[in-house]
Amino acid sequence: MSLYAVIMAGGVGSRFWPRSRRATPKQFLDVFGDASLIQNTFARLQPLVDADRTLVVTNADYTGITGEHLPAIPAGNILGEPVARNTAPCIALAAAKLLAQDPDATMVVLPADHLIANVQRFQDVLEAAVEAAQPTGDGPGPLVTIGIRPTHPETGYGYVQYDLEGDGKPGEALDLEEYDTPRAYPVLTFAEKPDVKTAERFLDAGDFLWNSGMFIWRADAIMAAFERYLPKVHHLFAPLIDAIGTDGEAAAIEDAYERSPKISIDYGILEQADRVLVVPGAFGWSDVGDWRAVHELADKDDAGNRAEGNVILQDTARSYARSSDGRLLVLVGMEDTVVVDTGDAVLVCHREQAQKVKDVVDFLGARGMDEYV
Amino acid sequence: MSLYAVIMAGGVGSRFWPRSRRATPKQFLDVFGDASLIQNTFARLQPLVDADRTLVVTNADYTGITGEHLPAIPAGNILGEPVARNTAPCIALAAAKLLAQDPDATMVVLPADHLIANVQRFQDVLEAAVEAAQPTGDGPGPLVTIGIRPTHPETGYGYVQYDLEGDGKPGEALDLEEYDTPRAYPVLTFAEKPDVKTAERFLDAGDFLWNSGMFIWRADAIMAAFERYLPKVHHLFAPLIDAIGTDGEAAAIEDAYERSPKISIDYGILEQADRVLVVPGAFGWSDVGDWRAVHELADKDDAGNRAEGNVILQDTARSYARSSDGRLLVLVGMEDTVVVDTGDAVLVCHREQAQKVKDVVDFLGARGMDEYV
Repeated sequence: MSLYAVIMAGGVGSRFWPRSRRATPKQFLDVFGDASLIQNTFARLQPLVDADRTLVVTNADYTGITGEHLPAIPAGNILGEPVARNTAPCIALAAAKLLAQDPDATMVVLPADHLIANVQRFQDVLEAAVEAAQPTGDGPGPLVTIGIRPTHPETGYGYVQYDLEGDGKPGEALDLEEYDTPRAYPVLTFAEKPDVKTAERFLDAGDFLWNSGMFIWRADAIMAAFERYLPKVHHLFAPLIDAIGTDGEAAAIEDAYERSPKISIDYGILEQADRVLVVPGAFGWSDVGDWRAVHELADKDDAGNRAEGNVILQDTARSYARSSDGRLLVLVGMEDTVVVDTGDAVLVCHREQAQKVKDVVDFLGARGMDEYV
Repeated sequence: MSLYAVIMAGGVGSRFWPRSRRATPKQFLDVFGDASLIQNTFARLQPLVDADRTLVVTNADYTGITGEHLPAIPAGNILGEPVARNTAPCIALAAAKLLAQDPDATMVVLPADHLIANVQRFQDVLEAAVEAAQPTGDGPGPLVTIGIRPTHPETGYGYVQYDLEGDGKPGEALDLEEYDTPRAYPVLTFAEKPDVKTAERFLDAGDFLWNSGMFIWRADAIMAAFERYLPKVHHLFAPLIDAIGTDGEAAAIEDAYERSPKISIDYGILEQADRVLVVPGAFGWSDVGDWRAVHELADKDDAGNRAEGNVILQDTARSYARSSDGRLLVLVGMEDTVVVDTGDAVLVCHREQAQKVKDVVDFLGARGMDEYV
């Protein structure tokens, strides 16, 4: 099988400020140890996909740092986007790049900045998804996404509802054991990030999964889907199949991005398409969306604290504190608090309000405080 | 009248860590603006006491920095204590120094690190206290302390109960207007720092004042009180009256401190003495004991926040944040929080637990982290 991986690494992850900056986005941070998130993403694909069959699509500014983090990947596999246009154009570019060299390519599309605790289970799910993405009759194969068994009524994720018996009706749910032998089911619906009540209803129903943002499909299948559901994007990116590898490649990519709308693959294609499958998985997944998630996922002491660097905690609970450059950080009488010191800036944030860190970064940008952004 | 001031400046004020350090104690910090606390203490005495009649008693390590902060005071008036022995030996040394030059000296004894909002009222109270400290018949004059009208049931201060009618019975309390013409009343009792219930009872009773730690008495009167109530300290310090100004001065002071017990003037003398007066005052006083007090006393915005330096506050209330060296400090979703950044250290503390900062400094000292102490 012609299996390729596409790592999407274009974002800044500004909720990780002050560690994430324009120059060092979240995916290049060692949030959970020695390796960066993108290095971990690459490493867990290794048994399934060769390094020279792995593409990274990132902002043109980050192709250099991507090469530093992933030296095993050929430089030509690191594609720089001239402007950010969300996931649909990113995936269209990767599909065009693959079709230019291999019409039979199957592509595994993964965000660069997720955490996966159980790599073996993840790989099993991925193999089932690759299998499910192959065409079985006429036309291109189905579009396959990976859904995560929800562990709590999370409001920060979108949801995907599967059809266990393939009868077009909701209501039947997988047993826990059924996650051990992953297989694909038809998708009934996609749901946006819900409110708490809706999330609780999803959890009770049992046939809703977290939408992981990980996709598996043949390159020709997704290109056909672009043609049908996002013809404007198809019109811009399909010609790249011929332009890639020629002298006009860079200019053609530049032009396609310049004229492309900003649109996500979920909204633009998956929610419209009629042959979408989902492989449910349970492998300790998180999109590590903010500092609250880091605290939640990190190893903690008995008081629920995680301290990194030169930190002293007194009468403090359920908190995350990170010092840098040996500077001393002391918390006294704090609860549910995130403190991150990066030398030029210090963030002190309530754990439950970690989403708002993005607003601070926007504010800093708007005020022209570019040295901190 | 032979009026002198004695500024007690021996402490470290470790609750002001990380700003207060062994090398720069609290009294030398500009907590509320451009001038240090000790400079403000000196300035508000100026209309009443000449600079060359002002003594400072401080740790021997701080005589240099004291001279830098108070250049108007003659170097010979800055007395260095070889070891810290609490307030009784400090006051005995100052009394001996004054008696060596002026047997009629009246001394105003003030901590270096208090805040006083209404300086005019403070000076009026001081003048009444000086008047009350003069002898009226046989024997030395009385010991006079300044008591502060309590505004809330504070548990961080000691209390002093006055006898409004001089009939030896508690229960009668001053009207608010009576604070406008300060005069001295006999003290009925001194009370240690109370618990909340007791503090509330004191407040309801109306005849309890906060014990300010400011004293006024003739030097011969306090020396006589030492002889009667703390004979051991008297035995060590009275000979300094003759030794001061001789070649043996330094050695004699060294010896007296070395052999002196650690004891406060309140516990050692005031709580024992039978002729103690108190002048009640209401002039916006605080001992500025910790960061909570700084927050309380500082000018704040509508959300109750005080920000100093390069600080951004988002969805934050009732907090104090201080950045240094232009580093950016951002608070998101915090309440009742103190954050103080000094470049080498950052403190994040719940406002109501600011007293515990002292424990952190003790801990740092015990761990040998002397660079931060």
